[in-house]
Formats: sequence, structure tokens, C-alpha cells
Amino acid sequence: MHIVDLNCDMGESFGAYKMGRDEEILDYVTSANIACGFHAGDPSTMRKTVRLALEKNVGIGAHPGFQDLLGFGRRNIDITPQEAYDIVVYQIGALYAFVKSEGGKLQHVKPHGALYNIAAKNAAIAQAIAEAVYKVDPELILLGLAGGELVKAGKKIGLKTASEVFSDRTYQEDGSLTSRREANALIKDHDVACRQVIRMVKEGKVTSLQGKDVSIQADTICIHGDGEHALDFAKYIRKALKEANITVTKLSDFLK
Amino acid sequence: MHIVDLNCDMGESFGAYKMGRDEEILDYVTSANIACGFHAGDPSTMRKTVRLALEKNVGIGAHPGFQDLLGFGRRNIDITPQEAYDIVVYQIGALYAFVKSEGGKLQHVKPHGALYNIAAKNAAIAQAIAEAVYKVDPELILLGLAGGELVKAGKKIGLKTASEVFSDRTYQEDGSLTSRREANALIKDHDVACRQVIRMVKEGKVTSLQGKDVSIQADTICIHGDGEHALDFAKYIRKALKEANITVTKLSDFLK
Amino acid sequence: MHIVDLNCDMGESFGAYKMGRDEEILDYVTSANIACGFHAGDPSTMRKTVRLALEKNVGIGAHPGFQDLLGFGRRNIDITPQEAYDIVVYQIGALYAFVKSEGGKLQHVKPHGALYNIAAKNAAIAQAIAEAVYKVDPELILLGLAGGELVKAGKKIGLKTASEVFSDRTYQEDGSLTSRREANALIKDHDVACRQVIRMVKEGKVTSLQGKDVSIQADTICIHGDGEHALDFAKYIRKALKEANITVTKLSDFLK
Amino acid sequence: MHIVDLNCDMGESFGAYKMGRDEEILDYVTSANIACGFHAGDPSTMRKTVRLALEKNVGIGAHPGFQDLLGFGRRNIDITPQEAYDIVVYQIGALYAFVKSEGGKLQHVKPHGALYNIAAKNAAIAQAIAEAVYKVDPELILLGLAGGELVKAGKKIGLKTASEVFSDRTYQEDGSLTSRREANALIKDHDVACRQVIRMVKEGKVTSLQGKDVSIQADTICIHGDGEHALDFAKYIRKALKEANITVTKLSDFLK
Repeated sequence: MHIVDLNCDMGESFGAYKMGRDEEILDYVTSANIACGFHAGDPSTMRKTVRLALEKNVGIGAHPGFQDLLGFGRRNIDITPQEAYDIVVYQIGALYAFVKSEGGKLQHVKPHGALYNIAAKNAAIAQAIAEAVYKVDPELILLGLAGGELVKAGKKIGLKTASEVFSDRTYQEDGSLTSRREANALIKDHDVACRQVIRMVKEGKVTSLQGKDVSIQADTICIHGDGEHALDFAKYIRKALKEANITVTKLSDFLK
Repeated sequence: MHIVDLNCDMGESFGAYKMGRDEEILDYVTSANIACGFHAGDPSTMRKTVRLALEKNVGIGAHPGFQDLLGFGRRNIDITPQEAYDIVVYQIGALYAFVKSEGGKLQHVKPHGALYNIAAKNAAIAQAIAEAVYKVDPELILLGLAGGELVKAGKKIGLKTASEVFSDRTYQEDGSLTSRREANALIKDHDVACRQVIRMVKEGKVTSLQGKDVSIQADTICIHGDGEHALDFAKYIRKALKEANITVTKLSDFLK
Repeated sequence: MHIVDLNCDMGESFGAYKMGRDEEILDYVTSANIACGFHAGDPSTMRKTVRLALEKNVGIGAHPGFQDLLGFGRRNIDITPQEAYDIVVYQIGALYAFVKSEGGKLQHVKPHGALYNIAAKNAAIAQAIAEAVYKVDPELILLGLAGGELVKAGKKIGLKTASEVFSDRTYQEDGSLTSRREANALIKDHDVACRQVIRMVKEGKVTSLQGKDVSIQADTICIHGDGEHALDFAKYIRKALKEANITVTKLSDFLK
Repeated sequence: MHIVDLNCDMGESFGAYKMGRDEEILDYVTSANIACGFHAGDPSTMRKTVRLALEKNVGIGAHPGFQDLLGFGRRNIDITPQEAYDIVVYQIGALYAFVKSEGGKLQHVKPHGALYNIAAKNAAIAQAIAEAVYKVDPELILLGLAGGELVKAGKKIGLKTASEVFSDRTYQEDGSLTSRREANALIKDHDVACRQVIRMVKEGKVTSLQGKDVSIQADTICIHGDGEHALDFAKYIRKALKEANITVTKLSDFLK
């Protein structure tokens, strides 16, 4: 039996500023990465988003990012591992309180944007984040780029980890994502995208841009929540996975 | 046997900005209200302050405030009860994560500055804060102004509450503090200050500015952490309480 | 000859968060109040909005607000007149630099949201804001609620002032706006709204909710930039003013 | 005749957080770089610091930095040249308004911390900053690291530039500063420090760590305002320069 999770960033509104179509997307994903007020989100948005996710029985994750609302957490800030540890502990705690006060349970932690990217490459930052998650709650699942440093650091410290794959990005023969600065970084054809993730889930393999098969662990697929076609693609991939006999369910149902 | 707690605001540094003499003050108080990053404090400061408080076996409290670093949480912001609820849940959670990751246990919650003041007077805000505390953890102690709305709201929802008194402030005959805008608001003489709190603890009474005795519950005494003479006064009052045979210990030791 | 300005808040996007349909609205208004990064807006948005306004030959105003992005400047913060002075000087300067670097000229200053409201009622805050504007540039036009304290303070210090009226709000017999908490605060019928402002411009009078005629100065009409029907109403009122033979042009064209 | 300016960062307090001994340091320096509210400083602090600098007849500079109060502007943020342009225009404008409202004249612009460092090395960022300064006011002096990209970009666009040297840092044979991560980066001996800057001013030369003489332009010397011995060193160097017959005066007195 093949099984996979679909995760999506959520709760990215801020005060009067609205972003995303969380309520609709929640019908198609199985895990929600909820912004914690640093790169996006605010206390009221967090409460509402947690409540929505619980109503729809979606796995809830803390989605810590850089403290950079203006840059939406997408600009790298040159932080130390200790600073990474501290901002991750803080943000997990903030979201945890909303989950607990709404009667739920926090499932996972996925860093956002530039913090996600640096955690995939920088072993010291990855280790600091893994330690932050572990010390707040060793039962939490740590979600990171398949093959990246964060997943390695998570395993090493004793956390359950979820390896994330992308349907709409091409891969290099070392298993890394093709940089967005390159041509061919993005897969725009929905069918090609679906075939790529189905193969990753079923066979644990992806064909790199160089034409070579690369081994990859696919526990969860990243679904984008913004953009005009986000909802359409979420429906599309969900249907494609079903037709491929892949069970789609939240991480805590199968990562033991 | 008479018993009382001494509490002090802590962890108010922010990045390169240093404030307070936390390490020294911690030798003389029994509970620490740790800023949670909204009116003061930052993730790294929170971690360090939690660690220090645990080392010195001082009761740890979350000290949520308005999101107003520039005003140090002392300026009232016109928020709704729902907003009060949300910012309190958020901040308790953030501090809770540091306490848990350092192996400790959160003891209490005390709102800061303008949020403390409005919570003492506004029943709807008080109820929202009490509910936030209760829903995050019903075992937490809610600390508020003796006789104020917050303590009432806490009792009503089923929380343990700690009534706070001031050694250096005069009282009105309705039990409220004399406004700082009035002359005679402050008690500057250390002996007078100590006699006032000793009587509050032992007899449950304070003499109002109008000369009338007023009943007052004194579970914890507010110690100021900033200012030149803060440390001296902390030592002074601690000694005076001892000489008056009053046991000074943290809230969780006697509020059951 | 009758003449009036139409003003609208602009430049309220923040980083990845988009708000308003500035480019379209700019075709129908004659003055733009551009957010200065405290309650909304950011440096890049300010530059782009200034450029757009210059291209469309619309009068540019600084739109200073409380430093409260989360509350979009709509929540009152309890500030001193000195603080009001300081935040207004700061924000005018920030916008001024973009106007100057783009080759334009700053026309006016209009406080935003809660700062606008408090400036209409509180004489000390109004005076502080008027002084801030005057000291930065005595040629600037100060825009405030018709009949309010800000316009009075502006006249007193020697600034040109623009009295603002609302098409979609009802008035009390003392000339103040009916509070939004009251029923009948809003005028939803476009024709009624247009008739109200046309009469204010032509006759200097408005019929209060109590049925009494009240004198009112109408130099500029507030156009809302957000909401679904903002653009439609801007077109509608523009057409109605034309049909009433009222010249619509920016403040600096007629306030000498 | 030899001439040099002494510049120091100022106005770095933030709300209740105090930093630096601005009033005292102002007696010994000739130019003040005033923080503009992004990495440090706030509107009230800016007003007070501008007033102090004017009283002491010290040249006033805008000191724009990254929007990172927590990191005090010392952490690099990965921004685009356009973002650098925008944050510099904004911050110059904010300070300019205080200088104008206090009856003074803005003399120069010096980027702060990580923005200073990146502007010394990255030609595109340097050019964006130079353009921002030029477009706000082509009469402003642009202050940057001697030999760095910012000074080059300033000259190219037609700004007056001030080349900054350090008394307490060692130099490499390519004229760059020795990285702080290296041993021997700092010069702790006051006499050695003074001899280094005197030679730079008089001969236009500095001896690199490699023992080789390097040409260097020394228009202004960086004086640190924080730290215990800041004030002492400011007095010391001032005296040493006088004894070496070097005139110490603000940039606008000699950069024409």
C-alpha cells in the first residue's frame, strides 16, 4: 500500500491583509503548515486557522520563519544556529498554545521560505532547528526537503521526519531541486507534475533533468496555497493520486 | 503562619538593548514575570531568562503585554476582548515552549503594563484574559491587582489566582491604587513601604490615603526590577518580611 | 464657480500583501493620501505609489498613522502630543523623500484612521500634528475633518487647511459625524450620498439626522479605496459632480 | 594643512531602551550618524538627537540600516538593489524632516552595520544607495569605507564622498579591513591607533598587516559611541590629532 500526505502553507493573513483561500484548500490537503506571526500570520489568524484545520481533521504544523513580515520570510537573514533555535522554539510555542486551547494536538513543524532553504543546506542551522523541535516536544514530526540537512538532523536527534517532495519542480542528479534561476526549474504541465509525484511515492525515484533516476523519499507533497490556480491544482493532484491507488492522509496516520 | 510571594518583571532586554539586573534580582524574589517579545524581550532573552530563573528555583510566569515595543507596553491600545484573548494565548505559548524545552514548569501569568491596568478595570478584557489562560492550561495561576477585575474573572472561570499588592503605592478607600497623576501616589520611605505590606500580609488590611482601613488580599508583592535602587529595595523588603516572620516563597508553594 | 477635491487613501499594500486598486482609483480622484509605512505601506510601495500619482497628475499627500500594522492604524493608541508630533514629522519626511526623488512636490498631509479621529477631537494632539506639518514645510496643506480640531489647529498656526466631508456618512446637528455604532450612520444609497456632497459643496450646508441644516466647509470629499464597490462609487460621484457643474481638481489648484 | 572629520553613530536609543552617551560624545566628534528607526532609533530619539547635534554644531548624517531592530542592523539581509534604494530613500527622508523642522541642514549619509559592509563590497547595492542619496538631494555627502564600492558609486553619480578610515582596525595589503574573525583584526593600543590615523591623514598611507604600505584616503575617522571606553578614546584621539597639527572639523567644512 502506498501512502502520502499533502501539505500546504496556511494562516498567512495579517490583520487587514488577507492572503490565501485556506478554507477551500483545507478540503484537499491533509496537513496544514500554519504561519506563527514572524513572516506572516498574527494571533487572531492563528486561532482561526487552527480551528478550521481541526474542523476539517487536517494535521496541524507550526510553520516558523524569519522575523521579516515585509519580505514574507523569503529573504535570507544571516542568523546563528542559536538564533535559529530560539526563533523556532518561540514560534512552535505560540502555535502550540492555540492548538491546545482549541483542543487539538500539534502534528509537525516545517520551517518557512528562506529558513526552510537554509535548513536544507546548512547542517548547523538544521541541527539547531531539530534540537528546538525535539526539546519542545520529541513526539513532533519534523518536515523538511527530501534528502536535505534538516531531515538528516531530525533523524539523528531521534525525531520522526517527513521528507517533502515537489510536484512542480525539477530535480538535479544529486537529488536537489533545480534552482529557480535556471530555465526548466518549474514543471507547468499538470500531468507531468502528477506523474512525477506518483512515481516518487510508488517507486521512490525521480528522473533528474540530466535524465538519470535518483532515489527520493516522498512522505509529503508540497501544495501551494496562493496563486490563481492553487485550488484547481490541489483538486487535480488529489484526484490523480486516488486514481493511482495512493492513500492520501495526514503524516501522523502513517509516520510512527 | 503568614506567607507571601515577591514577584518581579524580568527578561526585558531586546537584542543589543540591555535592561534590568535580572541575575541579581533573582536572588531576592520568588516569582519572575518574563516578557514574551511583544512589549519587551526576544526569543534569545526569553531562553536565557527562563534558564536563570530555573537555576535559582524561582517561579516562572508569562508576562504578556501589548505589541508595542516602542511604548514598552505602557500605552493603552484600544483592543477588543477577542484580541486580548489572542495575544495572551500567543505569548503564554511562546514562553511555555522555552520553559518546557529547559525542563521547567510554567507557574503563572501576569499581564504587563497597560494590559495589566485595563485588565484590572475592564471586566470584558479581564474575562478574555482569564479564558485565554484557562484554555492554555487550567493549572496556571493568574496574577492580577488585588481587588481588580482580572482576579475576579480568574476565580470565576476556575483558575487559582494571586492578588498583587504594592509596597510603594498608596491606596484609596475603595481599595484601588492612587493614580500616579496624584500627589501622594508613591511611598518613598522604605520603612513605611515595608510596614504597609507587612500589615497587608498579616492582617489583610491597608490604610487608605483617606485614613480608612480597607480589606485587601496580599498573595504577592510587586518588586520593581529597573531603576537604580531596585536591587537595594528588594534586599530591604526581603529582610523586613523575614523579621516579621513572614515566609517568602513562590506562589505555587502555597496557592493550591 | 464651485470646486472640490476628491481624496483617497493609497499605497496600503505591504510586502507580499496587496490592498486596494490604486491604479484604477487614481483615474477618478484628484488627491492621494499615501501610507507612510506605520499603519500600512512600505518603502517600495511608497515609491511605486508616488510614481503612479505623479503620472496621473494627482495631488500627493502624506498619510501618517499609528505604528500599528496589525491594527491597520484603526486602533487608538494612547500617545502624548509630543509623540504625535514626532511620528508625524517622521512619516512626512519619509514620503517627502520619495516625492522629491521622483521629481514631484508634496501637496498635503492627512492623518489616518485612529490618528485622524483623535486629531478631530483632541485639541492638544491636533495642535501637535499641525505644528509637525508646519515645521517640516509651512506650504503643506493640512487635511482634516470639517469642523474638527485639526483644521482649527492648522488655521491657527498658519497652514492652509482642507476641510473634509463624507458622502456616505450622516451628520449630527453639531456638525459631527454620526458614530458608526449608531444605526443610520451610513448612507448606502448612491444618489442620496451624491446629493449630500453636492449640497455641501454648493451651499455649504448639510441636513443633520435631526433634520436641522448645519453649516459645513467642503474642500475635499473622502473616497474609499477598498471594498468591492469603491471604484464604481468613485466613477459615480465624479459623474454626479460634473453634472452639478462642480469642478473637481486637486487641493493645490484652489487652496491658496 | 591637514584636515579630518571624526564621525560617530548616535541616536541609537529606542523607547525605554537607552544606548550610548550621545551628549558627551558630541563634544569630541564633528559629524554624527543618526539612526533612522530601522535598526535603531525612534522618532522621538531622532528629534532629540538632531537637536543636540545642532546645539553642538556637529554635522548631521542620516544613518540608514536594515529593518532589523532585534539584530541592531548587524545581520545581513539578502535584499535586492531596488530594496536597498527604497529603504535608504525612506530613512534619509525621515531624518531630513527632523533636521529641517529643527532649522538645520542634513550633511551626509552613512549606511549602518551590515548595510555599510555590503555597500562596501557589492557594486550593485552601492550604486542603488548612491542613487538614492543623489535623488533625494545631490548636495549630500556620501560616507563609506575608504576604497570601497560605495565611495566609488558615489563619485560616479556625482556626489561628494567621504572616505572613512578606522583607527582601531588593521588593514590588508589590498586596502580592505582585516576581518574581525582573524586574530590581529583589532588595534587595542591607543597610541598605535592614533599613529595609524595620523599617518593616514598626513601621508595618505597605512601599513598593512603584511608590512606593505597601502594608499588610503582619510576624510573621516570612525569613533565608536558604545562601550565603556568610547568616551575616553574620543578624547584621546582628538588630543592626538591636535598635537599632530591636524584640523578636526565636520565634512561640510572641507569637502567641496
